[in-house]
Amino acid sequence: MRDPRDACHVAIPARDLDEAVEFYVFGLGAKLARRYDDRVTFDFFGDQLVCHLSENVPAEAVAYPRHFGVSFARAEDFDRLVRVVEHRKLTVLSGPSLRFEGTAEQHRTLFLVDPSNNVLEFKNYDDPRLQY
Amino acid sequence: MRDPRDACHVAIPARDLDEAVEFYVFGLGAKLARRYDDRVTFDFFGDQLVCHLSENVPAEAVAYPRHFGVSFARAEDFDRLVRVVEHRKLTVLSGPSLRFEGTAEQHRTLFLVDPSNNVLEFKNYDDPRLQY
Amino acid sequence: MRDPRDACHVAIPARDLDEAVEFYVFGLGAKLARRYDDRVTFDFFGDQLVCHLSENVPAEAVAYPRHFGVSFARAEDFDRLVRVVEHRKLTVLSGPSLRFEGTAEQHRTLFLVDPSNNVLEFKNYDDPRLQY
Amino acid sequence: MRDPRDACHVAIPARDLDEAVEFYVFGLGAKLARRYDDRVTFDFFGDQLVCHLSENVPAEAVAYPRHFGVSFARAEDFDRLVRVVEHRKLTVLSGPSLRFEGTAEQHRTLFLVDPSNNVLEFKNYDDPRLQY
Amino acid sequence: MRDPRDACHVAIPARDLDEAVEFYVFGLGAKLARRYDDRVTFDFFGDQLVCHLSENVPAEAVAYPRHFGVSFARAEDFDRLVRVVEHRKLTVLSGPSLRFEGTAEQHRTLFLVDPSNNVLEFKNYDDPRLQY
Amino acid sequence: MRDPRDACHVAIPARDLDEAVEFYVFGLGAKLARRYDDRVTFDFFGDQLVCHLSENVPAEAVAYPRHFGVSFARAEDFDRLVRVVEHRKLTVLSGPSLRFEGTAEQHRTLFLVDPSNNVLEFKNYDDPRLQY
Amino acid sequence: MRDPRDACHVAIPARDLDEAVEFYVFGLGAKLARRYDDRVTFDFFGDQLVCHLSENVPAEAVAYPRHFGVSFARAEDFDRLVRVVEHRKLTVLSGPSLRFEGTAEQHRTLFLVDPSNNVLEFKNYDDPRLQY
Amino acid sequence: MRDPRDACHVAIPARDLDEAVEFYVFGLGAKLARRYDDRVTFDFFGDQLVCHLSENVPAEAVAYPRHFGVSFARAEDFDRLVRVVEHRKLTVLSGPSLRFEGTAEQHRTLFLVDPSNNVLEFKNYDDPRLQY
Repeated sequence: MRDPRDACHVAIPARDLDEAVEFYVFGLGAKLARRYDDRVTFDFFGDQLVCHLSENVPAEAVAYPRHFGVSFARAEDFDRLVRVVEHRKLTVLSGPSLRFEGTAEQHRTLFLVDPSNNVLEFKNYDDPRLQY
Repeated sequence: MRDPRDACHVAIPARDLDEAVEFYVFGLGAKLARRYDDRVTFDFFGDQLVCHLSENVPAEAVAYPRHFGVSFARAEDFDRLVRVVEHRKLTVLSGPSLRFEGTAEQHRTLFLVDPSNNVLEFKNYDDPRLQY
Repeated sequence: MRDPRDACHVAIPARDLDEAVEFYVFGLGAKLARRYDDRVTFDFFGDQLVCHLSENVPAEAVAYPRHFGVSFARAEDFDRLVRVVEHRKLTVLSGPSLRFEGTAEQHRTLFLVDPSNNVLEFKNYDDPRLQY
Repeated sequence: MRDPRDACHVAIPARDLDEAVEFYVFGLGAKLARRYDDRVTFDFFGDQLVCHLSENVPAEAVAYPRHFGVSFARAEDFDRLVRVVEHRKLTVLSGPSLRFEGTAEQHRTLFLVDPSNNVLEFKNYDDPRLQY
Repeated sequence: MRDPRDACHVAIPARDLDEAVEFYVFGLGAKLARRYDDRVTFDFFGDQLVCHLSENVPAEAVAYPRHFGVSFARAEDFDRLVRVVEHRKLTVLSGPSLRFEGTAEQHRTLFLVDPSNNVLEFKNYDDPRLQY
Repeated sequence: MRDPRDACHVAIPARDLDEAVEFYVFGLGAKLARRYDDRVTFDFFGDQLVCHLSENVPAEAVAYPRHFGVSFARAEDFDRLVRVVEHRKLTVLSGPSLRFEGTAEQHRTLFLVDPSNNVLEFKNYDDPRLQY
Repeated sequence: MRDPRDACHVAIPARDLDEAVEFYVFGLGAKLARRYDDRVTFDFFGDQLVCHLSENVPAEAVAYPRHFGVSFARAEDFDRLVRVVEHRKLTVLSGPSLRFEGTAEQHRTLFLVDPSNNVLEFKNYDDPRLQY
Repeated sequence: MRDPRDACHVAIPARDLDEAVEFYVFGLGAKLARRYDDRVTFDFFGDQLVCHLSENVPAEAVAYPRHFGVSFARAEDFDRLVRVVEHRKLTVLSGPSLRFEGTAEQHRTLFLVDPSNNVLEFKNYDDPRLQY
């Protein structure tokens, strides 16, 4: 278990901050915390995501090696994320699908793409102890 | 506050997995969770970090826009991280220094570089409520 | 102690939603959760505040009987709120001052006013058990 | 998640304090914490509700824009509140009903009225992450 | 550590229920939960105390063997209880004093008397692990 | 919710300390914490029970007004207590039965008797919020 | 309940540290924390296991009196451990089987053997209160 | 952080069960949970210790490789353990002393011996994150 008071910090590029707010807040349901001329910060599932205004965004969405997201300990939280994605028609790169099938570390996974071609992954392990 | 049972998930490239283990486990004090031919996974301060074997690593360490790390709610945890960095002589990109000085969101920050030129940021806000 | 997963819900009028976002998010440090044409919702210190667009706002700010806010169990969290108010020059109605001085239920209090004349109160009891 | 030690604070008018105790304690199941000549304070689902003696109460119960209540993270807690309301025949303004139906933020809601025409709302979101 | 959701249950006699409310709620700062013709129930420091109307109350207050109260894990909570007792001039049977002095289980103790001669004890062990 | 680090403290008479250990530890499953010539202390469901050696024990077991026990927030914990009582053939005074049936505060209850005629009550409210 | 921030500490002999890492990390799913020439340390289900390089290991695996492991409060966590053992074909000494059957302290148990003949036991009590 | 509801399980030999109770309960302050003819079980700092009656106990107390104990996250809990050891004159094998001095994993340590020559170690790391 992690400390509930600390926050993981992830910083990524965004070509347009309004677009980022649209996707992360009104799409994924993250919460807008602060906004500056060159960046916007979010409470992203309890962790801190920062989108820095940048022209240096990926030309296309590629799943590996760079991505970020959440590994949900409970199956219903993964299901709820899938429901948000469907209701709000967010862009899916792949999934939901099963990975490492038939092994102890089997898990469901869903890859999304944000408006700046950053890739997100949401996961749910059958055995949350193995989510690391 | 975030859910202590979920894990934030961050995936980054590594040019050499042994080097990654050396830096993240024996350097930063993360814990090795699983190892495959093409990736190694860590319990990184309670969240999940995955290093994917890749030749596509940054040519040099650049702080913005891409980096990741931890925002500590308590000052002593930031101090302890600084002590680990000093004792184990990890590569510092900049800091520890004060940012947004004289504002409500003032915080200490320290930037590190991993062996594949990925940039890490550790922070401690005077007001943890504003760490998002 | 209260349940950390539930949220207290407070709904108030706002004459202008942008103004409300400016005050609650960029002023007080609440987080913007959702926005509709007629309302905006906030993660307000972990509880849910909703500002409904309305012409029916108070003509002037009056402390009693209607107001809402937070009672902090720890003195340092009250101090941090005072610091945010000072740094961001939010409108103070009265305080910080001491109330019920010399009694068991002695506490510090600070009254603020939002752009629609809604009154907020932040408190810190010497004995958090008596904060109810 | 919110801090279990802090308390949200809501202050409203009451035309009669005995009536308020009757409704909030012996009706809704809140707990009486303190009583003064001009006010009575309650542990209201873990948060602090204060009823100030006032002649300035609403002429009739109107749901918007002003109301307060609780958003329950678990469906069974909403069900239990509905059961209390039925057993003790509290005054229902509307509901229980479904709002934002067919969207990600779909939730059940129940509006009550207290003896001074203050309106209360209790909610349960299908996805508690979206309860803000 | 105990389960925060359960409640210890203590039932005692009271010769007069109004007197019991006066002592436990407006004196000690417990919260009134429910009231019936023959009993009144309290949220007593998070546990449930019930005063049953009874003529069978002790003729005088005797500390042993029957009493009940709270063992506080933190010294400041014991100090706060002492402050409430002083401010509200509650009846002290003995203390605050030190017991088992010079042993590992050394603790501070304060004995109070309620209006029906029931005895209460509040404690604070230097080593909370030994408070059992 | 109560503070998990504090302990409710209940002190009762016992005519024989070995008998008390037999009943509370090897019967009810409490844990023996400390033993002195004139008293024995238990970790009783996370709270502190002390049995003081005394000749002043009740002549017979009477349910009201004096008794103590636990109110379980979850039905399965009450079921488990019932199972312990059955397996270990502890003396039941009455129940398990339903009280306040058909009201919001409906709950299951079980009364036991210890070897010194002290009465214990274990409860489980349909709505744990009303367990106070 | 135990303190989530402390760690139980168990130190055992290992005839080969690589073998220990293979078994504990890539087998049981513990996490490698630190490694020295003469020992390796693990985050073993949240507690600390240390394997000291030693020629003094048991000649064969004997279940009693020395062993160590985890008592899971929830049945699904025991089930998940069994699944890991099956998927990764770890050496089972006995079980899973039922012990103390038909008593209040009935529990499931599974004994494993590590590469140095140290014995591990994993358990799940029907009544987690009796897991001590 | 570990799960507060699970328990680490450590089983060791004891040549005499009364002696074990004397040392672990009345010495170290563990709590006696269950007793059988051939074993006694303890709540040992929140984890489960079982002493099995056995003639196979160590001829003398040797610190390595086999021992068990607790790593305290907070310095004051280590201090309290030292105080219990001094007050109750428990047998110290070595310490309290500092180990890994001048490194990031520096910690205080104290080795005790139980009546069957089993060795216990209590620790406190300057940086609790490195206690694994």
